[in-house]
Amino acid sequence: MLNNDWGMSKYPFVPGHEVTGTVSALGEQAKGLKTGQRVGLGWWSQSCLSCHECLSGDHHLCSSVQGTIVGRHGAFADRVRAQWTWVRPIPDGLDMATTGPLLCGGVTVFTPLLINNVRSTARVGIIGVGGLGHMGVLLARAMGGRAAVLSTSADKQDEARALGAERFINLKTESPSEALRAWEGGADIILATPPAAEPMMAAFPGLALNGTMVVLGAPPDSIAVNPMELIMGRRRLMGSPAGSRKDLRDVLHLASTHGLHPRVTTMPLDDAERALKKMHQKSIHGRAVLVMD
Amino acid sequence: MLNNDWGMSKYPFVPGHEVTGTVSALGEQAKGLKTGQRVGLGWWSQSCLSCHECLSGDHHLCSSVQGTIVGRHGAFADRVRAQWTWVRPIPDGLDMATTGPLLCGGVTVFTPLLINNVRSTARVGIIGVGGLGHMGVLLARAMGGRAAVLSTSADKQDEARALGAERFINLKTESPSEALRAWEGGADIILATPPAAEPMMAAFPGLALNGTMVVLGAPPDSIAVNPMELIMGRRRLMGSPAGSRKDLRDVLHLASTHGLHPRVTTMPLDDAERALKKMHQKSIHGRAVLVMD
Repeated sequence: MLNNDWGMSKYPFVPGHEVTGTVSALGEQAKGLKTGQRVGLGWWSQSCLSCHECLSGDHHLCSSVQGTIVGRHGAFADRVRAQWTWVRPIPDGLDMATTGPLLCGGVTVFTPLLINNVRSTARVGIIGVGGLGHMGVLLARAMGGRAAVLSTSADKQDEARALGAERFINLKTESPSEALRAWEGGADIILATPPAAEPMMAAFPGLALNGTMVVLGAPPDSIAVNPMELIMGRRRLMGSPAGSRKDLRDVLHLASTHGLHPRVTTMPLDDAERALKKMHQKSIHGRAVLVMD
Repeated sequence: MLNNDWGMSKYPFVPGHEVTGTVSALGEQAKGLKTGQRVGLGWWSQSCLSCHECLSGDHHLCSSVQGTIVGRHGAFADRVRAQWTWVRPIPDGLDMATTGPLLCGGVTVFTPLLINNVRSTARVGIIGVGGLGHMGVLLARAMGGRAAVLSTSADKQDEARALGAERFINLKTESPSEALRAWEGGADIILATPPAAEPMMAAFPGLALNGTMVVLGAPPDSIAVNPMELIMGRRRLMGSPAGSRKDLRDVLHLASTHGLHPRVTTMPLDDAERALKKMHQKSIHGRAVLVMD
């Protein structure tokens, strides 16, 4: 968004779409919230509440849904405003700093795991173990599933194991489809987190029969799949954007009851420039979180 | 298979993989069948019965599944042999000639309609109204769903309406994605029957949010999808090969209880050459069925 990669940024631009804080003021129509309450806000800030998707509970697919940092100012600030319905209470026991990343990255990996019925027998392949990917491993394991990490960084192996992955596939030295198929026939689900089409296409034939690849990072190019691999394996390719209000609530409760803590590095808000630079240099461990007094 | 388009034909080649007839002889291990019984046989003739997929009921995804006309001789003959488990009894009330096409083409469109929960609210787009497509319309309607046909042949409009389609989209003059989106927001399911990638890709953005395109005909090229159309619409692309033994049974019962009759033109087996020529000229109405005394 900072660099307008998706062509929808407006300047001056204020980032910040994984927000935790307390309610400072409430509109007259706001329901279920109290002043002073600990709350979180993610990618979406407003939906129409009346279209087919909103009526179905899929408010995040609403055709007039508004993003927290799309056409409005985000939370690198001391106040942020959003429609009450997208402001979710933070359960007791969750820490404000580690909860932030659950509100966009976390729910983005949680929703497709939920849709695809991850349970104890599920083999979940996760491409990338950065912001989204590392939460994918934590959530897949908390939901009872098994996890394998696919990464180009051999030095991420220990971290992947510590998060709960039972396999680590080095994309620089191994064929992802062969390595996944050697995992009892392939992955039932693959979460593709980096916005690059090539590793997605290379891993696709590593899906088990009836398996689903979920595209989370949006590559600039098209994703091309071989029709016979789709047909003969009854495989699926799907995409998923963040998650619904219900899924936001559920992922926060799951994190609270299962004691999940996304890996974060905290820095003061005044160091935002330095944090961004370190993020681009990939020298930050986990998600960077900016903290205010 | 006759022209070895898929590179797996063996010559001399005997076609015939949508077969109806009576049981002339039974092996010692055969169960649930009687000599003289009316039965049908489709694309698959044998599966291992012991792998994970066979144990799951997905015998058609068995890694050692054998096709009726792949590496063995098919039913353009007075006898054909198959594993008992793939030989399905034909319910009373079904005609032998119109039942044939249900055994491969019919189950191929039935299974994905079933997997994707077609019900009365479902908008089903069907690309092509030939062998598979016309049965797709009949089955989607019998399952309670609504149907739109997308075709390059304007002269198929009356047939599409007669089969039960409420819309006809002319692929030569209309944008399939725009025409589908004008259908209350898009198709929940699109069955893509012709083996051509271009109409699939053109229709893909005509899926409603949460919609699924099912690739049934295998194009020679890859199918390329735009990642943002996958992600923001939570859309899916999947493939599906024929159907399971259970689905074969169910589609025959559905046809029997709902009085479904695939459109067929019957000709004597001796006229096989002429039937093939007319099929290539597209001058046969519905599915060509060869009949023996």
